[in-house]
Amino acid sequence: MKLDEAGVAAALRATPGWERAGAEIRRTYRFRDFREALVFVNRVGGLAEAAGHHPDIDIRYNTVTLALTTHDAGGLSAKDFALARAVDGAG
Amino acid sequence: MKLDEAGVAAALRATPGWERAGAEIRRTYRFRDFREALVFVNRVGGLAEAAGHHPDIDIRYNTVTLALTTHDAGGLSAKDFALARAVDGAG
Repeated sequence: MKLDEAGVAAALRATPGWERAGAEIRRTYRFRDFREALVFVNRVGGLAEAAGHHPDIDIRYNTVTLALTTHDAGGLSAKDFALARAVDGAG
Repeated sequence: MKLDEAGVAAALRATPGWERAGAEIRRTYRFRDFREALVFVNRVGGLAEAAGHHPDIDIRYNTVTLALTTHDAGGLSAKDFALARAVDGAG
C-alpha cells in the first residue's frame, strides 16, 4: 500500500502544486480572508469524509496548509494523492 | 494593549484549560471524530469573525488546537483571553 520512491515521484508529477516533506505531501492555499479559508476547509472536510482519509489542516487566518500521509501504510499511499487531486478538483 | 506579566498571569487564572506558550496561549480539544471537530472549528470561526480576532487552528482528525496571540500588540492582550473564554462558553 505504501508507494515506493518511484511511485511517489510519479504520483507527485501527476499532482501539481503539492510538495513532498518526508512522509507527507503538503500544499498551502491562500484566500481573500478567513471566511473564504473556512469555506475551503469545509469543502476539504467533505471530501475527506467521503474518502475516509483526513489531511492535517492548519488555518492561519486566510492561509490553509494541508498535509497528507497514510499512517496505516507507514508513508505515502495512492490515497494521499487521490485526495490531493480531489481537493484541487482534478479528482 | 499588550498585557504585562502580572496581567497575563491574572488573565490565565481566569481562563482555565488554556496554557501559555511564549507569546501565545493554547488549548487542545478532542472530539468523537473529524465531523465533530469541524463543527467546533466552524463555531470558533463564527466567534473569531464576531471578535475580529482569529486564532491559529490546527486540525488533526478529531483533535483541534487553538493558539491565540495579538500580533499588533506584540504579545498577549485582553482580546486573546476574551476570545478564549468565548470559545469555552464563558464569554
